[in-house]
Amino acid sequence: MAKAVVLLSGGLDSTTTLAQAIDDGLEVFPISFRYGQRHDKELISAAEVCKYYGVKHTIIDIDLSSFRSALTNSEIDVPHDRAGKLDAEIPVTYVPARNIVFLSIAAGLCESVDADRIYIGANVIDYSGYPDCRPEFFESFENMLAKGTKAGVEGNPLKIVTPILNMSKAEIVKTAKKLKAPLHLTWSCYEGGEKACGKCDSCILRLRGFREAGYEDEIEYM
Amino acid sequence: MAKAVVLLSGGLDSTTTLAQAIDDGLEVFPISFRYGQRHDKELISAAEVCKYYGVKHTIIDIDLSSFRSALTNSEIDVPHDRAGKLDAEIPVTYVPARNIVFLSIAAGLCESVDADRIYIGANVIDYSGYPDCRPEFFESFENMLAKGTKAGVEGNPLKIVTPILNMSKAEIVKTAKKLKAPLHLTWSCYEGGEKACGKCDSCILRLRGFREAGYEDEIEYM
Repeated sequence: MAKAVVLLSGGLDSTTTLAQAIDDGLEVFPISFRYGQRHDKELISAAEVCKYYGVKHTIIDIDLSSFRSALTNSEIDVPHDRAGKLDAEIPVTYVPARNIVFLSIAAGLCESVDADRIYIGANVIDYSGYPDCRPEFFESFENMLAKGTKAGVEGNPLKIVTPILNMSKAEIVKTAKKLKAPLHLTWSCYEGGEKACGKCDSCILRLRGFREAGYEDEIEYM
Repeated sequence: MAKAVVLLSGGLDSTTTLAQAIDDGLEVFPISFRYGQRHDKELISAAEVCKYYGVKHTIIDIDLSSFRSALTNSEIDVPHDRAGKLDAEIPVTYVPARNIVFLSIAAGLCESVDADRIYIGANVIDYSGYPDCRPEFFESFENMLAKGTKAGVEGNPLKIVTPILNMSKAEIVKTAKKLKAPLHLTWSCYEGGEKACGKCDSCILRLRGFREAGYEDEIEYM
């Protein structure tokens, strides 16, 4: 049984990605990061998703709070007006090199558990402004891993699998439903309250995705 | 004044690399990692080196102790018989994807402080068995950064500078002496005692380097 490390934030996209990896017949090793987020709702969701599937959850602590970013610096407000803007501008929610760092650590975990691929729920539609969400980035990352890891040097380079890369949010919701992913356990909201805010970029994209897919979102909103 | 993030472990190689970056006329941002090492002697040395130069020291906490490795797992002995072996075998002291992870985080710090290059004291002579110490790895890492970072997308890709990559240990010592690097503050020993053991691979390579360079090592040995 082939093994995959799966980047799991606890949101809709990464949970769908985990469901896909399981459906692909892989033994999965979900990995999450406590990196200075302003709240731990996502991590709690990630843990609940892992419990749901009965798989071991690895949480790596890494303090990136010294990196300038709206998502990790509580002095900067998260934006509420960018949903649907598909321009090439880099959003202020961009955490410097975040996917690079997370994929690097995932590669280390791959070597530790003898996994030969990394699943990541990156998406070019909603996050066109993030340099490290683009297909050409993942290709270059694979090339780098082929040169810089034991597996790569030994002729078995790690692969990066991006099952939802080109899906719309509605397609992601449909895929998740088909795979019976536990969407009721996921958290997408930028804020960390008892219920999702329904107003931030992430909530708006999620709600629109459910609506366009023809499903009711199963989580509660304020 | 151009800025550089410098990976600083507190050992001979990285301290020489820092000295070179300063000599190159750069504003330096040394970065070290607390990643589950078995002792903190290196980190203390790194901090003292930064104090010596009067530069800000960034220490990033990242728990890699779940990765299988002799350097982070206290149940595995460090090897004492590999010094000078220049074969292609991967040593047990190899931490999965360590340089990949460290360079990734350094890239994030670059974006945060507007640095345009990363200095790393990697060396192919003494560490030929480490995949992520080879020139072709650094080249592929630069290519990946060009695709996956804000600076890269904007046409100013980060550069990785490896000033001691092809130097022998003796050449590194000579370079450090020429640059007046504070070698008396550095720590290379795999063990964490009051004085360096003088017997582990790292001590043996260091001592041989000083001897061949025609200098006395300035640190104390047991």
